[in-house]
Order: sequence, then structure tokens, then C-alpha cells
Amino acid sequence: MEEPPLYKFGPYKIDAREVFHATPLSYAMVNLRPLLPGHVLVCPKRVVKRFADLSSDETSDLWVTAKGVGAKLEQYHKASSITFAIQDGPQAGQTVAHVHIHVIPRKKGDLEKNDEIYDAIDVKVKEKEMKEKLDLDVERKDRSMEEMAHEATEYLALFS
Amino acid sequence: MEEPPLYKFGPYKIDAREVFHATPLSYAMVNLRPLLPGHVLVCPKRVVKRFADLSSDETSDLWVTAKGVGAKLEQYHKASSITFAIQDGPQAGQTVAHVHIHVIPRKKGDLEKNDEIYDAIDVKVKEKEMKEKLDLDVERKDRSMEEMAHEATEYLALFS
Repeated sequence: MEEPPLYKFGPYKIDAREVFHATPLSYAMVNLRPLLPGHVLVCPKRVVKRFADLSSDETSDLWVTAKGVGAKLEQYHKASSITFAIQDGPQAGQTVAHVHIHVIPRKKGDLEKNDEIYDAIDVKVKEKEMKEKLDLDVERKDRSMEEMAHEATEYLALFS
Repeated sequence: MEEPPLYKFGPYKIDAREVFHATPLSYAMVNLRPLLPGHVLVCPKRVVKRFADLSSDETSDLWVTAKGVGAKLEQYHKASSITFAIQDGPQAGQTVAHVHIHVIPRKKGDLEKNDEIYDAIDVKVKEKEMKEKLDLDVERKDRSMEEMAHEATEYLALFS
């Protein structure tokens, strides 16, 4: 029997196995195409397009959650910094109409040019350009559910 | 008589005329070198290097403030999206050791390549590269206090 989807990401149903942490108002999931190890997304549970559409409670919960997720994944991946970003609206590069924070553990030299991480976030639009610029071809292929579920299980343990 | 500095940004004292909005725990200031019109910074009042060092109250206040600032500046500048980003730690491009959110109103075609905004955020390290990539030389010169104070006064009115 198929497990009912508990989470939505814009128009998409998210398999619960991809989700490794949840609070009353937010959830954190692994990424179909992580740009670097530990690149995850933190989202409000409510499907909301723009950041300004969130209530104060949702905003607070979302960012306190992202802060905790970032700290745990930075340590887990032996990183030393974190990139946090919201592409809030299409002109900022948003491709899924559901607020989401990119949380990306960063290390010295993790990308040839440190800030190219941002180019790479906008996956769907910039894929060709990114492939030319970033040596992340392998990681950028869609991953299997098994692979994602495995990663989520590792992270789940960080919150237990 | 010199006005006493009310705000600190890492090791720097911030002139109160640069600050256009403040809450009990956060403040918003105009930028010495805005990358696009309305590019401002939102900071916790407490000098804290890493995002994880903020309390939950500070985190909530910071992001609720940034959300409000973004919404007002997006409208004021007739933009349609916003880039929100924290470069949390040196390996993420942080150059001033004080948590700060970049809030950047975005418009269609505002940069030749939409995501180059992120390259441009890391001003001090990437200046030369940016000059080559972005046609923002004029805006990237240090502005006078008068110019910044004028902009801050315009924004101040949005919060009255």
C-alpha cells in the first residue's frame, strides 16, 4: 500500500522518506540534485509562493528550523560555513512556487570560484551554463529515491 | 558635536543616518555599495558572527524584519522579486564578521545573467571579477554619507 504524501512542495507531492526533520510549521528535505554534500531545502508546510505571504509565526519557525538544520549539517559534513538563500520570486531565480530556503554547507575550495554556488542554485534555467562552469555533472543528475531516503535517514539521526 | 554611534556592524561604527528601520533586536541600513537599487542589509543589533549564534528571538526578529523591509523596498523600487541571502562564514563569502541579510529587490533583466547577483555580493573579494562581469562600476564606488543618508530618509518614510 502506498504511503500517503504528507508534504507538498509547490505542485509536487514529496515522499515522506525525503523529509528528515519537521516542526509544526516547517519541514526539511534532501535535494533531488544537491549541488554540494548536505545541500537541503527548508520549506513552510503551507504552500506559499512569496516570502512576504508567510505569517510571522511561519517566518520564525522556518528560519529557526533552517538555523538548526544548517548547524547540524555543517558539523556532519565537516564544513565551516553555510550559504542560506531564498530566491523569492521568478526574477530572483525561483522555479518552484513555494518558499524554500537553500541550506548549503560550505568548505574552503568547495567550488573553484566560491560564489558560483549561487549560479548553480537555479537548476532548471541555468543547467547548461552550470555544466560548463561547474564540475558537478555527476551530482546534478536526478538521484534515486533510495539514495535520497538513505541520506534523509542519516540526517534524521541528527535530530533524534 | 559628533553624534554617538548607535549601531555596530562587526568592527565598524554605523552612522545613524544610514539606518532606516530598527526593531528591538535588529536594524536595517543602506549599503555603501549597492549592487542594485534598494540593495540593503538587515542585521541583528548584537554583534554576532555566525547565524547559529543568534537566539531564537533574534532569529525571528531578524527575518520578520527582513521580510517587511523586502516587501516595502520591492514595491518602492517597482521590482517583482527579492533575493535574500546570508553568507554565513568566510567559506560562504562573508567578509564582515557580523550576521547580515542581503535584501535585494529584483526585476526582469536587471542583470544580464540573473544569478550573477550572488557573485556580486561578495564585494571585497570579487571586485575585480565583478567589474569584468557586471556593468555596475558606477554603483560600486563608495557613496558619500550624504547620498546614503538621502536614500535612508526615503526608506524611513516607508516605515512611518
